[in-house]
Amino acid sequence: MAEPAEPLTRGDFDRLVTATTRWSDNDMYGHLNNAVYYELFDSAINGWLIEAAGIEVLALDQVGVVAESGCRYLRELSYPRPLEVGVRVERLGRTSITYALGLFAMDEEPPAALGRWVHVYVDRRDRRPAPIPAAVRRLLESAVEARG
Amino acid sequence: MAEPAEPLTRGDFDRLVTATTRWSDNDMYGHLNNAVYYELFDSAINGWLIEAAGIEVLALDQVGVVAESGCRYLRELSYPRPLEVGVRVERLGRTSITYALGLFAMDEEPPAALGRWVHVYVDRRDRRPAPIPAAVRRLLESAVEARG
Amino acid sequence: MAEPAEPLTRGDFDRLVTATTRWSDNDMYGHLNNAVYYELFDSAINGWLIEAAGIEVLALDQVGVVAESGCRYLRELSYPRPLEVGVRVERLGRTSITYALGLFAMDEEPPAALGRWVHVYVDRRDRRPAPIPAAVRRLLESAVEARG
Amino acid sequence: MAEPAEPLTRGDFDRLVTATTRWSDNDMYGHLNNAVYYELFDSAINGWLIEAAGIEVLALDQVGVVAESGCRYLRELSYPRPLEVGVRVERLGRTSITYALGLFAMDEEPPAALGRWVHVYVDRRDRRPAPIPAAVRRLLESAVEARG
Repeated sequence: MAEPAEPLTRGDFDRLVTATTRWSDNDMYGHLNNAVYYELFDSAINGWLIEAAGIEVLALDQVGVVAESGCRYLRELSYPRPLEVGVRVERLGRTSITYALGLFAMDEEPPAALGRWVHVYVDRRDRRPAPIPAAVRRLLESAVEARG
Repeated sequence: MAEPAEPLTRGDFDRLVTATTRWSDNDMYGHLNNAVYYELFDSAINGWLIEAAGIEVLALDQVGVVAESGCRYLRELSYPRPLEVGVRVERLGRTSITYALGLFAMDEEPPAALGRWVHVYVDRRDRRPAPIPAAVRRLLESAVEARG
Repeated sequence: MAEPAEPLTRGDFDRLVTATTRWSDNDMYGHLNNAVYYELFDSAINGWLIEAAGIEVLALDQVGVVAESGCRYLRELSYPRPLEVGVRVERLGRTSITYALGLFAMDEEPPAALGRWVHVYVDRRDRRPAPIPAAVRRLLESAVEARG
Repeated sequence: MAEPAEPLTRGDFDRLVTATTRWSDNDMYGHLNNAVYYELFDSAINGWLIEAAGIEVLALDQVGVVAESGCRYLRELSYPRPLEVGVRVERLGRTSITYALGLFAMDEEPPAALGRWVHVYVDRRDRRPAPIPAAVRRLLESAVEARG
């Protein structure tokens, strides 16, 4: 598992979305449970594909399954504070995509966590690697180009 | 368990908050899992107490534990659509509070779900019923009065 | 929402399954979050249908959606203690099933929670009420008969 | 983030525990959501410390917070199948512990996922790095020695 990219700021991400937190997100230590970070990363990535590219996840022939994920926890977070999640395309392959992710407490500059995520597209039926759906590729390519 | 109040509209609630949904909230049927509704109700109630009354949940001598909860599911919801959660004080006792709850898809009028929730306050140590904390009582009484 | 059945013992349930708990199930109060009870009820009901009747939930034309759920919390539970979940058929209609549920700490007699659950079967496509699938009905009828 | 150890078999782990799955663990694709793997890893690690060393997590002066986690997903899993989770001490430092983790479908040899987990102990109050609690160190050292 490669190192997640160096401390990124909000401006480094291709997309930034707001996420609310839940009472049940806080664990016995009174802070956001570590698994919740992955729920938020997942939601930010898929929400981008669904909302920006009008992709109907369940109607595609290819399914993006998670091959690898990782997170470095830099600062504690806790409900009820709302968060922002940043998504950045790190690598766009033929059948897989690597994303860098950032989690930020609302109105706080330094990232609270940095993540890394690899989606591999597989055929819905035979589960063998399949090309990234065209609509997904178009969306992510244009995001990379828009970085200027 | 008493019937939740009759179909309520957003205006009937004392407080209305926005909640984002997550990829993992949708279950195999592609809609919000039924337990998630309770996570959202819980978060709306506690978020109100924490944010509006500045209550530090873990610093109080009394703990509000759930004695009873219930939900009627009226319309399917699903990620990535954001939601609104309404909270209404139904009954303010000496040691317990009953809330009515409503879950609404953003920009949609009829409630998707109606809930009912009973918090009983207990002493943090001996777990015996204890009076509702003063700050909580003040907040909820003023909400009821503000209904006009 | 009708009252869940009176304090039931393990012997009153048609099926009893073991469930392990998770670190993330405990909330800030150090006890099982109230929404987790519903996850466990749901899993016990569907696990019964899947395992005992060989039902492939996603292959059926009818989908059992939750119309109503409720829980009375009687005793606190917490990770890492394993639990037992009891399921009992309360009412078998034409298109809906009402279950009573019980949650027990392993090796402890009195129930920690009692639940109530209404599944309504709907057509997977048009979402209109549909008859309970034959395999589900057969399983539950034989469970009721086996009570003797 | 370093690579998780090479495909491990059940015998490579210092501890192996059973975990039941839940209806809500399966996401829209009908398989275990990727964040659930972390809930299970977390539960297996903490469950070991709590049950084998009699550690009362909330009573210690030091808190083990997650500094880093990662997972490689090798095979799809899904509810209702029960799982086994393996925990192995990879590195025992002065203030931090690195664990390797494995997730196995019950009765299936190859691991379905391999994980990596870094706990850093901090003082409960000032949140600065603190020595691993003595009871935790003893437990893990004896596990490493017992490998023979």
